[in-house]
Amino acid sequence: MGEVPTTHPRYKSLMARKLLTDAAASGMLADSALIAHGRGEAFDYLLGEMTCESAREAIRESAARLLAAKQPVISLNGNTVALAAPELLACAAVLNCAIEINIYYRTPERMVALLSTIEQRKSEAQQRFPELATQISAVPILGANPDVRIPNLDGPRANCHSDGIFSADVILVPLEDGDRCEALIAMGKTVCVIDLNPLSRTAKMATITIVDELTRCVPLLLDDLQNGVMEPNFDWDNEKNLREVTKQMLRILE
Amino acid sequence: MGEVPTTHPRYKSLMARKLLTDAAASGMLADSALIAHGRGEAFDYLLGEMTCESAREAIRESAARLLAAKQPVISLNGNTVALAAPELLACAAVLNCAIEINIYYRTPERMVALLSTIEQRKSEAQQRFPELATQISAVPILGANPDVRIPNLDGPRANCHSDGIFSADVILVPLEDGDRCEALIAMGKTVCVIDLNPLSRTAKMATITIVDELTRCVPLLLDDLQNGVMEPNFDWDNEKNLREVTKQMLRILE
Repeated sequence: MGEVPTTHPRYKSLMARKLLTDAAASGMLADSALIAHGRGEAFDYLLGEMTCESAREAIRESAARLLAAKQPVISLNGNTVALAAPELLACAAVLNCAIEINIYYRTPERMVALLSTIEQRKSEAQQRFPELATQISAVPILGANPDVRIPNLDGPRANCHSDGIFSADVILVPLEDGDRCEALIAMGKTVCVIDLNPLSRTAKMATITIVDELTRCVPLLLDDLQNGVMEPNFDWDNEKNLREVTKQMLRILE
Repeated sequence: MGEVPTTHPRYKSLMARKLLTDAAASGMLADSALIAHGRGEAFDYLLGEMTCESAREAIRESAARLLAAKQPVISLNGNTVALAAPELLACAAVLNCAIEINIYYRTPERMVALLSTIEQRKSEAQQRFPELATQISAVPILGANPDVRIPNLDGPRANCHSDGIFSADVILVPLEDGDRCEALIAMGKTVCVIDLNPLSRTAKMATITIVDELTRCVPLLLDDLQNGVMEPNFDWDNEKNLREVTKQMLRILE
């Protein structure tokens, strides 16, 4: 796509595309991953490509839940590894928790590509977040040897680790699919998702839905995790939060 | 993506994805083509994946303009060839006009892939539209030897044929980019576009904007072309039509 100056009004969006098309070329992504990213771009357009106040609240609440968890975990897929591996490693470092690679279209090749990419990006994460360097190197990366299945979910996407997703009480899952979100909720877990479509089944099923672009909201989440934030609000009204985000999108369309 | 039953509620959408991921694998598409398709999917979701009344009117008006044109032309890119080559060949056959391949990220490899694909799909088009078989075989496919440039447009995307886009008075351009749409309008042409984003620069610049999904609206356009439809309405208010489509999307979000 050629050189894009950092002053370009759509610089961030174009860089995200480049990260994803590079990841696709290196075998990290399923065929539909770029299409899914494009859907997100359209909804982000309706958000004015900004973190709205409702999303900011959902980020804070997710941070509070993750910090208060007994055993949190961060579940990542191809797009999230491609777009925000260092920041997500830093989140896991602060939480002292595992990252588990859990993808919809699981193939051995893609799992190998993703597991090795995230291990490789640990050094980049350490350079960017030197205060977390020791913890980052210790973040367990799970996904290679799933030994249990998420109940009521068909296909290889149900495979997970008994010491990761299966036993976690609070899960951060950026870009989750609707079925798996539903199955995790049915297991009694607190599920924090990042999803740009406030009308998606994932957005509606999750405990807390951050309707925001991944690379924009993960640094904010990391800030909140590092600053301790407030106590969890167990009366969190996710439906109300989604309605607020939708109103924001209506303003742009109007 | 595995076998999808024809009864699946999202069958058409999943088949469109398959056509595009296959086209990407065969070298027909730029890196960003799948992302652009995903953006369209999100806007189509806001349309309820249906052709709204305003889009139906824009299809009728486009047909009327194309039928009344002195020299119409259909400009195609990678996504449109992948998704609707037979139907678009049939439209060109009814109009007795050329198809010109004109792509944003022009490379010799992609041009060869697209030109050969559309020639190959002529026989499929003839089987599907036997009443048009003779005219389909005669549809000129331009794009291989551009001899002139669209004024005020930089880069290889400005290259075109003097007996195609350059001299046409009415152009049907599904999925056009904003800059080229603007440059074609500045040449005094009537530009009919198909674009799922009613807020895009292309949608706002065009003479007539069909806000609808490509594979859903092209068969309707073909119907109108074959049935002669009514006279062009030179008082067509494209801005008003776009406002109506946007209202439709607001209803879904609400």
